Amino acid sequence: MALLERHDAGRVAHLRMCSDRNLNALSDAMLAELQRAFDALAEDRDIRVVVLSGEGRAFCAGHDLKEMTAGRQAEDGGAAYFADLFARCSAVMQAIPALPQPVIAQVQGLATAAGCQLVASCDMAVAAEDARFGVNGVNIGLFCSTPMVALSRNVPRKQAFEMLTTGGFVDAARAREIGLVNRVVPAEALADETAALAETVAGKLGSAVRIGKRAFYQQLEMGLAAAYAHTGAVMVENMLNRDTEEGIAAFLEKRKPDWAE
Amino acid sequence: MALLERHDAGRVAHLRMCSDRNLNALSDAMLAELQRAFDALAEDRDIRVVVLSGEGRAFCAGHDLKEMTAGRQAEDGGAAYFADLFARCSAVMQAIPALPQPVIAQVQGLATAAGCQLVASCDMAVAAEDARFGVNGVNIGLFCSTPMVALSRNVPRKQAFEMLTTGGFVDAARAREIGLVNRVVPAEALADETAALAETVAGKLGSAVRIGKRAFYQQLEMGLAAAYAHTGAVMVENMLNRDTEEGIAAFLEKRKPDWAE
Amino acid sequence: MALLERHDAGRVAHLRMCSDRNLNALSDAMLAELQRAFDALAEDRDIRVVVLSGEGRAFCAGHDLKEMTAGRQAEDGGAAYFADLFARCSAVMQAIPALPQPVIAQVQGLATAAGCQLVASCDMAVAAEDARFGVNGVNIGLFCSTPMVALSRNVPRKQAFEMLTTGGFVDAARAREIGLVNRVVPAEALADETAALAETVAGKLGSAVRIGKRAFYQQLEMGLAAAYAHTGAVMVENMLNRDTEEGIAAFLEKRKPDWAE
Repeated sequence: MALLERHDAGRVAHLRMCSDRNLNALSDAMLAELQRAFDALAEDRDIRVVVLSGEGRAFCAGHDLKEMTAGRQAEDGGAAYFADLFARCSAVMQAIPALPQPVIAQVQGLATAAGCQLVASCDMAVAAEDARFGVNGVNIGLFCSTPMVALSRNVPRKQAFEMLTTGGFVDAARAREIGLVNRVVPAEALADETAALAETVAGKLGSAVRIGKRAFYQQLEMGLAAAYAHTGAVMVENMLNRDTEEGIAAFLEKRKPDWAE
Repeated sequence: MALLERHDAGRVAHLRMCSDRNLNALSDAMLAELQRAFDALAEDRDIRVVVLSGEGRAFCAGHDLKEMTAGRQAEDGGAAYFADLFARCSAVMQAIPALPQPVIAQVQGLATAAGCQLVASCDMAVAAEDARFGVNGVNIGLFCSTPMVALSRNVPRKQAFEMLTTGGFVDAARAREIGLVNRVVPAEALADETAALAETVAGKLGSAVRIGKRAFYQQLEMGLAAAYAHTGAVMVENMLNRDTEEGIAAFLEKRKPDWAE
Repeated sequence: MALLERHDAGRVAHLRMCSDRNLNALSDAMLAELQRAFDALAEDRDIRVVVLSGEGRAFCAGHDLKEMTAGRQAEDGGAAYFADLFARCSAVMQAIPALPQPVIAQVQGLATAAGCQLVASCDMAVAAEDARFGVNGVNIGLFCSTPMVALSRNVPRKQAFEMLTTGGFVDAARAREIGLVNRVVPAEALADETAALAETVAGKLGSAVRIGKRAFYQQLEMGLAAAYAHTGAVMVENMLNRDTEEGIAAFLEKRKPDWAE
């Protein structure tokens, strides 16, 4: 059985981490599978939205500690392996906002350490009521320094600091209050509600969502004036799209758009 | 009847968009009126606070789609017109934080696309319970790329992303939870509650509010050390103001300040 | 009696501002005491967590207005004194995130102006239900320009703007909603709950918390790619720590870690 399964439903690609035995740990193999899947999706013009989920007790419990421990056997005590591992993991995390399609985390059970980072890195997240979130590496002496990059760009800083230094958990309701997830639903409705959200987004004009998502993350790192200069140019590009012309015409004529793409 | 009416009540200027027929759309004419009004206010030392409101069913429903469609008739398909339009619109949005006076959005009904951006661009916002907010250009194939500059500087990023890609609405209570508005009041109390907030701010020392507002947006774009260096100098300037000296003296003597300005 | 008392309980240092007569004002003397205390703590490897509290009616009511007024007697009207005062105060505020140990504000009563800034500057904050927060210098003509640096990095911008320009108060429950404090507890439980939070953090591996806290504030000022590059290197450093190796081994063997530090 594959570590990571991809199942396409229409224009929505469902990626499912299938390694319940180690709580869908981000092992070398899982990271490679995720990177490969994202690389393929980046070129896939049929897919409009990606849903990322995990099978079993956890969405994802972070790094594979056994594998990391084995890495210490190298002559350098693991230094080169760890540097490469965190580079590969950070590349996977950054691949999500860089992907042309919106990515929705569908979260049940545990999302801890780099697993919580995975949720924070997704563009949106839907959580089951029983989901729990933590960046709790500090409990074993490994501060979640890379996970905090994504976490601290999602939630208020005192909240992020508390999670990072206490190693405590946040439940789904609190995760929504602080901005880590968009919606909280009963566990039995998780797949359907996430699919419904995905369908809503997949029904929009794909090219518009694509240029919008890219501009979203670009402008977040700019000052106000630069952000307006950049997004102004994006709006012009968007307006000159034939399907956008049709979308606006259809709206004014109170009919459904007939999009070519 | 004017597109934009200005009515001054003491030291508070009320700007009212009066184009219910097109939901107070940001047409070329409306943008010109807003820019003109803000330019005049920038020089107006009698006005301490600005309230921006809209007449009718909507606070503002964004760009004027008919006018934009007409712009496509140009030889370049509208490219030059659209570039100019978004530049003018972005200038209006940036004029609000650049204005010396605090600007409060008084929001009823719909605030969508660039209308939602207008709310996000104001320094504060009071919403009627029936107000609804959306950046829903995506529904017609035009991603709200410029509106998201203001929106994403008001609300958590996953929330902003959801609004932008689903085209869904957020009600007033939720808008307050996520930071898009300051207060939610019954529709019949909207004008009074907004005026009361405006009066509270107008009663402060105008010169202090002026230098404080300017420093507020400047320091937001700086690192921590630079922000402290900058605002430290602002505090010195503020302390050397004669009216501030009087304000502090009055406080220590438990009396009302007798301000000259 | 000292202006600032330090009492160590195990690995937790309790700093207590003891000047109820002036609501624990940040006088020249108090600022000097705080700076001295932080300088000592920066070198203190036995202390893992710092709790900062205030005695009496207020946590801290900000600057000492009588002292500032006296400063006006200088030939330059106080310009040099004020510049120096705000530089010293800003140095104290920046010393908190720069400290190797997490700092928790334990807040009762009033936290106003630079006192509210002190809360915002701490890494975490626990508030009594009766605590009230304001940046209300605007009420006396002195806009809280330096306090807003810390405040606007804790809470949504429209909320910060409202507090700064209205001079109004926010209660403890609202302070938690907006991200200014982590927890709200009954007044009689404040000391115990804060101590419990401090003990939780003090029980973690000190060296991991130390490098994590430093990286936390560094990466907040970086773009996404730079933040990942930086924290990736921090993770490698953390992994090569002997105590972290022991922490991970103990976790895999389901036993308590035997840390050397």
